[in-house]
Amino acid sequence: MAGHSVVGKSIIRLDALDKVTGKAKYCEDLKLPGMLYGKVLRSPYPHAHITSIDTSRAENISGVRAVITGRDVPEKRYGPSVFDQHTLARRVVRYVGDPVAAVAADSVEVAERALGLLKVEYEKLPAIFDIEEAWEKNPPVIVHRDLPKYELGKFPPLRLVPDRPNVCHLRMLRHGDVERGFKEADLIVENKFTTTRIQHCPFEPHGSIAQAESDGSLTIWAGRQSIFLARQYLCKLFDLLPSQVRVIASHYIGGGFGSKVTLYTEPIGVMLSMKTGRPVKLTFSREEMFSSGGTRIPFVIRIRDGVKKDGTLVARDMEMLLGMGAYAGSGPLITRNCIYGAVATYRIPNAKIDAYAVYTNEPPVTSFRGFGSSQVLWAIESQMDVIAEELGLDAVELRRKNLLEEGDTNITGEIVHSIGIRECLDKVAESLEGSPKSKMEGGPWRRGKGLALGNKYSMAPTAAVAIVKVKGDGTIEVHESADEIGQGCHTVLAQIAAEEFGVSVDEVKMVWGDTAFTPYFSRGSTSQRTTFNVGNAIRLACQDAKRQIFEIAAEKVHAQIQDMDIKDGAIYVRSDPSQRISVTELFTSERALSPGEFGDYVEPSAEILGKGVWVTRPAPSDPETAQIPENVARMGGRLAGFFGYGVQGVEVLVNIETGEVKVEKVVAASDVGYPLNPKMCEQQIEGGVAMGIGSALWEEVALDKGKVVNPNFGNYKIVTSINMPKIENVKVFLVSAPHKEGPYGAKGTGETQMTPTAPAVANAIYNAVGVRIKDLPITRERVFRVLREKAGG
Amino acid sequence: MAGHSVVGKSIIRLDALDKVTGKAKYCEDLKLPGMLYGKVLRSPYPHAHITSIDTSRAENISGVRAVITGRDVPEKRYGPSVFDQHTLARRVVRYVGDPVAAVAADSVEVAERALGLLKVEYEKLPAIFDIEEAWEKNPPVIVHRDLPKYELGKFPPLRLVPDRPNVCHLRMLRHGDVERGFKEADLIVENKFTTTRIQHCPFEPHGSIAQAESDGSLTIWAGRQSIFLARQYLCKLFDLLPSQVRVIASHYIGGGFGSKVTLYTEPIGVMLSMKTGRPVKLTFSREEMFSSGGTRIPFVIRIRDGVKKDGTLVARDMEMLLGMGAYAGSGPLITRNCIYGAVATYRIPNAKIDAYAVYTNEPPVTSFRGFGSSQVLWAIESQMDVIAEELGLDAVELRRKNLLEEGDTNITGEIVHSIGIRECLDKVAESLEGSPKSKMEGGPWRRGKGLALGNKYSMAPTAAVAIVKVKGDGTIEVHESADEIGQGCHTVLAQIAAEEFGVSVDEVKMVWGDTAFTPYFSRGSTSQRTTFNVGNAIRLACQDAKRQIFEIAAEKVHAQIQDMDIKDGAIYVRSDPSQRISVTELFTSERALSPGEFGDYVEPSAEILGKGVWVTRPAPSDPETAQIPENVARMGGRLAGFFGYGVQGVEVLVNIETGEVKVEKVVAASDVGYPLNPKMCEQQIEGGVAMGIGSALWEEVALDKGKVVNPNFGNYKIVTSINMPKIENVKVFLVSAPHKEGPYGAKGTGETQMTPTAPAVANAIYNAVGVRIKDLPITRERVFRVLREKAGG
Repeated sequence: MAGHSVVGKSIIRLDALDKVTGKAKYCEDLKLPGMLYGKVLRSPYPHAHITSIDTSRAENISGVRAVITGRDVPEKRYGPSVFDQHTLARRVVRYVGDPVAAVAADSVEVAERALGLLKVEYEKLPAIFDIEEAWEKNPPVIVHRDLPKYELGKFPPLRLVPDRPNVCHLRMLRHGDVERGFKEADLIVENKFTTTRIQHCPFEPHGSIAQAESDGSLTIWAGRQSIFLARQYLCKLFDLLPSQVRVIASHYIGGGFGSKVTLYTEPIGVMLSMKTGRPVKLTFSREEMFSSGGTRIPFVIRIRDGVKKDGTLVARDMEMLLGMGAYAGSGPLITRNCIYGAVATYRIPNAKIDAYAVYTNEPPVTSFRGFGSSQVLWAIESQMDVIAEELGLDAVELRRKNLLEEGDTNITGEIVHSIGIRECLDKVAESLEGSPKSKMEGGPWRRGKGLALGNKYSMAPTAAVAIVKVKGDGTIEVHESADEIGQGCHTVLAQIAAEEFGVSVDEVKMVWGDTAFTPYFSRGSTSQRTTFNVGNAIRLACQDAKRQIFEIAAEKVHAQIQDMDIKDGAIYVRSDPSQRISVTELFTSERALSPGEFGDYVEPSAEILGKGVWVTRPAPSDPETAQIPENVARMGGRLAGFFGYGVQGVEVLVNIETGEVKVEKVVAASDVGYPLNPKMCEQQIEGGVAMGIGSALWEEVALDKGKVVNPNFGNYKIVTSINMPKIENVKVFLVSAPHKEGPYGAKGTGETQMTPTAPAVANAIYNAVGVRIKDLPITRERVFRVLREKAGG
Repeated sequence: MAGHSVVGKSIIRLDALDKVTGKAKYCEDLKLPGMLYGKVLRSPYPHAHITSIDTSRAENISGVRAVITGRDVPEKRYGPSVFDQHTLARRVVRYVGDPVAAVAADSVEVAERALGLLKVEYEKLPAIFDIEEAWEKNPPVIVHRDLPKYELGKFPPLRLVPDRPNVCHLRMLRHGDVERGFKEADLIVENKFTTTRIQHCPFEPHGSIAQAESDGSLTIWAGRQSIFLARQYLCKLFDLLPSQVRVIASHYIGGGFGSKVTLYTEPIGVMLSMKTGRPVKLTFSREEMFSSGGTRIPFVIRIRDGVKKDGTLVARDMEMLLGMGAYAGSGPLITRNCIYGAVATYRIPNAKIDAYAVYTNEPPVTSFRGFGSSQVLWAIESQMDVIAEELGLDAVELRRKNLLEEGDTNITGEIVHSIGIRECLDKVAESLEGSPKSKMEGGPWRRGKGLALGNKYSMAPTAAVAIVKVKGDGTIEVHESADEIGQGCHTVLAQIAAEEFGVSVDEVKMVWGDTAFTPYFSRGSTSQRTTFNVGNAIRLACQDAKRQIFEIAAEKVHAQIQDMDIKDGAIYVRSDPSQRISVTELFTSERALSPGEFGDYVEPSAEILGKGVWVTRPAPSDPETAQIPENVARMGGRLAGFFGYGVQGVEVLVNIETGEVKVEKVVAASDVGYPLNPKMCEQQIEGGVAMGIGSALWEEVALDKGKVVNPNFGNYKIVTSINMPKIENVKVFLVSAPHKEGPYGAKGTGETQMTPTAPAVANAIYNAVGVRIKDLPITRERVFRVLREKAGG
């Protein structure tokens, strides 16, 4: 954007040097005096009664400081939405990996030895694994028999479904009259799509150090995506006030991707610390990450669309079953929010969506980059190509015809703003060069192109507070609480402060990560909300600080406050820039805040403190229909903070003999509102593409009767540089549909490009070899089988 | 004051339990991993050239990690006002105790052994000890031959006196026409008074831990009276930016009394840490406290007063010589500010004051509770009794006749505000019961009563910033940077926040003491400025937070913001208190900042952040006359932030055979503006009385050719419970002359009652036995001698 000198530039990450030199410290690097190491014993059964636990042998080992079981933990259950989980299982285990006992010892080795000496006796119970079966009325197994009965409209607003006992939440959307819509349709297309469990695979597993203080308060060092959410969960579980729980971010975090929102290690660590009085570090093994560290939610989606001959969508009916596993975690929230993935892109006069959160005896799920939208769009964007095929229309044109535009009303009643998807689509379609028809390649390989639209809402409400200190030497210190999970947020946020003060990012110091000191940020680095919300808070804080500086400066240079500006450490008069005073001079002058009685010897140490508060409020909506009242929508009311939009096009090679799929080329265009740091936007997009390819083709936490059979990187394949298209074949476009509330128009961009990859690949495969894959991942075996079926084999 | 529920109450100190149980941690309690211990070798000579230092034997001891000398430290000199001091002496030592070399070792014992092996050769130089001799033109010794030549009006605004080479600063006051005044006088009284060096004797000696970080920045843990001043001094000395120096307060500090403003241990600790890369703790021994830890400034005061027969003061001429010792420290600032001690109480149409800061080869001085006013008032308040005696007037009536009143103009041109001294005088005079004439007591003991007026300005400028967080549970967290030096500031400050929110102090958490986190407070807990300035900042921060809360609440309860108030965790409508909502309810409601998507399960964790900035600005004044321009004064301009006033009356017994003096009774009345915590005000006053009695009767750092001969509590007598009057004989009155800018009208009160004790005692002695002591301390020997002289012995 014209006139900007720091934002809009591809500033190199401020933490780059620390990270490549190994200087960056993670939770695992932190050691406290007297610290113990915790380890957890887990259930080998998917569903069982615990009949007895004998801890005596374990307790007698030298170096073991505490052994705790379900008898030691609060009767109270916790969880981010449904209170369904004990810190350690008390009577019943519900999945393979359910924590049963924990040990704190002088070393990890001693703790592990002690685990082996714990003797637990179980009485096995029948288990249920199939989501659809679990969802049915009169299911063979009920996972939780004793959930509190919530009513709609009461807190928490969970909608239970009386005759479906494994459903812990139902969300609904009703827009127009879907039955009338289907009557008007020339064609009705119905399909069932499924997605599977994938793990986030952050290179740093879950870990924390918990210290139960002698005054009853807690101090936690942890790599979390939200220190304030962690505080909130711990307050609830242990009946403490916010001021009694201090969560300190372990400065750097080795990847989050949604997995580090829920608490995994902290509650057990706290219990062990309470028992020993010493700090306890608890770190998950990689195996625990797969069995008990949370996965993406598997979806079963039935989608039924009504369209006119010309491609106009007239009705959409979706029924989605979300497999929670044994405990709901953030699943009910995803059940609510996944609906937004279906509302953002297309004009649909009549829509009906039901989303059910369903318990099974599989490992619990959690939030994952894309937060439900990836799964919803797997169905929708595959379905769009099916419709185009059936109507004989071009898939791109079909999409163009139905796209929402700025000022349209979407299916929640929200008036659409900042929608750059058409430009994204144009860029990708053009870059994929013409028709997405298949061409013969050499030997068994067939080439195909496909694309899909993606979107990702950013959740509201969000409250972010920032403090900006301007020091007498003109340097800026920004206090905020964004969580650095690898995305580089502090670099972008420093750019905003630097821009506001007309200095380079070197003169901005970022301070974050301590609920006792850094300002409030309600839900942390989740839902691609950081840049938008914390960025705005910082901008406001800078403006507050500048106003104070200008007040002092205006008096010195005899000018009006509103005529003043600041750049390169000097305040000047806009109409006469020769009228100026440096920050240092200002702070040491006798009229300044604290000149010190002996003039310039007294270092310019005064500090101006500016404060900014940014709140993104959600519009109220009808719980039965998810609709926003019209008058609220007219005033700009919205459910999501904003929508990020993106389109991905891929070119694949499919081996018709083996079913192998190679992604040869990716074109990704993202509407980021305004690219505050273009290079980092591109990196987010490339990261989304890589994760998208992995989730499309290989990734699956494979379960055998509820037990993870591939809990390691040897058997669970994540995408690596070997499987990625060559870097010159990954093309990224940044599109700017500025958001009126975004800082400089910017929106978040961390999750959007995770959402369209899988359907783009499926569409490309169809265009290559004419088979439609409806279940993720699109493994070689699966492609091979459908090719055989198609060939009538 | 009516309507207050928390301020005005004698809340028990929040830190009382920590202090009496030993839980409170001081700098000495802190140990860092790998920490070394530093020790300093000091000069045995008052003035000498260093000809050689041999460090080789010391360096070879096992456990010694670094030895540094003047060769290792910057050529650059530092100091809070005059740049006259090297971190370690480079070529010349100027007092007995001047640091010459330092050692860092694995233990204090090893460090001390190493000191003994350092071989330093000196070439002795002639030294000067007498202040008046040093002040003369052509003095026999010049202490600093190479000071930079500062000009008046330039930074720093030190006025050197060309023909007096040991004077490093001259301050002047000119008001009216003093010569004409003397011509109008019926009586001229001239006297010379002196004060001596006393030490602050904090129970915790100076100490710090310095860590030179690998990126060139510094982290310092220290018990300082101002973490921000410490940062400022370190920035200057080591050429660092404020953001590169972090000073962390060692939570509790064992007494300051002015001694912990200047840096003593930190610069040497930093040099040792730079050399070793490890944290270095450096703690003064008690002997070092006496030789090198700073003392109160000895004054030589010539005072000449012209009065009318009826007692009206018409002229005052004061010439004051302040003995800096070898380095000026904060002495030049005291030279400027001690003048304010003479301006606060009496109406004087014609005045002239000259105050000279004079170097000698004695140990350096520093700020001390009273900051020059104690010494100035020693002369003035003794002189007032002399005048009364000579005119045959009652000493109380003489004072009453000349008192300044609200709205008067004082001798700096300032218009007097918040002056409760007349009420203090009335209370004390009445409580002393009538005439202060002596009465015969049994045996050799004679009884006498006397009183004196005291005052203490609070310096401007001051900038204080506070942050107040309101948590969703209604608890309040206050971030500020007042330094807890034993005075209990955080209790009073918590009361202010509690009052503003209508909660008890238990619901207020105070957070302080880290330049990297807690908000700016320009000069820390010095000059009795904390309650006034930080208190105001907190009030403003609370009001900012309340405004935000009321904005949200007003919408909920359908009321006007200006009609809302808060109490006991609930916001209500003033005109209809049944219209209310609790903070918890507000923060969890859907319209609140961060309800969390799942209602009340999501703990009320939102935080409202309020900010307050308070700046006390000084009026400009003429450097030649110390006068404020009339138009500035009319608009309320003032040199000091405010004046605290107090009167002390004492009853003494004097032994005419031995000269012994016993203080039998003390009556002290202080104008505190408004007593936010009456009990704590009384405790400050009692502390001032105790310290005042010690300084009046016994305390003296005795020097023999510049060497301290009583550097321990065996030979340096401080006041103890044995020497104090019985507690029932110490009567304290609190007087309230509310200050229009003070929080609830309050002013500071920490220093005022240190200022009148000594002259009150001298006046009582005169009234008991008819001899006038003009030199402090009033030792038994001194009284004995003047009694002998008077008896013609």
